[in-house]
Amino acid sequence: MKCSVILFDGFETLDAFGPVEVLGTLAKGLEGYSIQCYSQKGGMITSAQNVRVQTLPMSEIETNGILLIPGGIGTRQEVNNTSFLQSVKAMCEDAQYVLTVCTGSGLLAKTGVLDGLRATSNKIAFDWAMEQGPQVRWVRKARWVCDGKYYTSSGVSAGIDMALGFVRDTMGEPVARKITCGIEYLWNSDADNDPFYVE
Amino acid sequence: MKCSVILFDGFETLDAFGPVEVLGTLAKGLEGYSIQCYSQKGGMITSAQNVRVQTLPMSEIETNGILLIPGGIGTRQEVNNTSFLQSVKAMCEDAQYVLTVCTGSGLLAKTGVLDGLRATSNKIAFDWAMEQGPQVRWVRKARWVCDGKYYTSSGVSAGIDMALGFVRDTMGEPVARKITCGIEYLWNSDADNDPFYVE
Repeated sequence: MKCSVILFDGFETLDAFGPVEVLGTLAKGLEGYSIQCYSQKGGMITSAQNVRVQTLPMSEIETNGILLIPGGIGTRQEVNNTSFLQSVKAMCEDAQYVLTVCTGSGLLAKTGVLDGLRATSNKIAFDWAMEQGPQVRWVRKARWVCDGKYYTSSGVSAGIDMALGFVRDTMGEPVARKITCGIEYLWNSDADNDPFYVE
Repeated sequence: MKCSVILFDGFETLDAFGPVEVLGTLAKGLEGYSIQCYSQKGGMITSAQNVRVQTLPMSEIETNGILLIPGGIGTRQEVNNTSFLQSVKAMCEDAQYVLTVCTGSGLLAKTGVLDGLRATSNKIAFDWAMEQGPQVRWVRKARWVCDGKYYTSSGVSAGIDMALGFVRDTMGEPVARKITCGIEYLWNSDADNDPFYVE
């Protein structure tokens, strides 16, 4: 199973690398389970926190794996990048699972693949995310939401909880718990427990 | 204030990028507060989870800032890299604050700068870390430890809690709490509360 991380300038650092830590720890113990960073054209991508990451072009992504899409201020540009959105849409249709963190769900919503499905996003930009996909069944109170093969999380750190939830759903709770011990992470394991939701 | 992140091949992804998220979120609102990744010779560095990061050479680090040193399997090589350790030691003496995550404290201990000070490390490699600095006053039960300008955390995710603790100590609790809300992070704010310690 390949996990392909889709990066763009201005992605939020922890949105991507929290789940990468979880899935990468999993990858250590499983042959054929690997992580690779991609971007639309490949080359160097800079996060919102000034981390410069080398990527391969998205055209090289193997289908039928896991796609991970972070959020971040860069999503505001990418929702207007038609060719990027078309490629993301095609990759989602081929992927076995698609995981988004924070405003990554806004980006995904804009492609149309979430239409009619339940999804969440981060608190600060929730209304912006909703505008990207009026046909999505947005859930305001959720640490993360799973609908079919699509996992969407609320803000930044929630992506770590979601990634562990994804591991639990696909490989069982003991595997997820082993990762939490290895990375000494206090997992909020209940997708419906959203401590940052305000009525 | 500059935060210089010291990377090496095989660093643990979240060790570095958890605190980078916290300090980088801080940087957004503060002029002159910035993040930059470095390595011994500069160039491309690959994390234990296959994230390839572009770095500047350590010789370009400005003194009197914050140093952040992650852990990871790569520390096992670097504790035998004498010229790297000498540079790290000199940079620590010049730095205003030094933060390590996970086995990063083993690396730091090997330079000698922690001798006589209290420090912690991750659970799985605690004995290895101790061997790197027999004169360090190692604390097995701690989410993180602060002794003077040195902050050391236990495994991986504990680095996020420590970084928030560092922000609280240097800029006040409201600043730290604002970051936790922005990144929707459930902060274990008590350095002595170590849920992964086993008697």
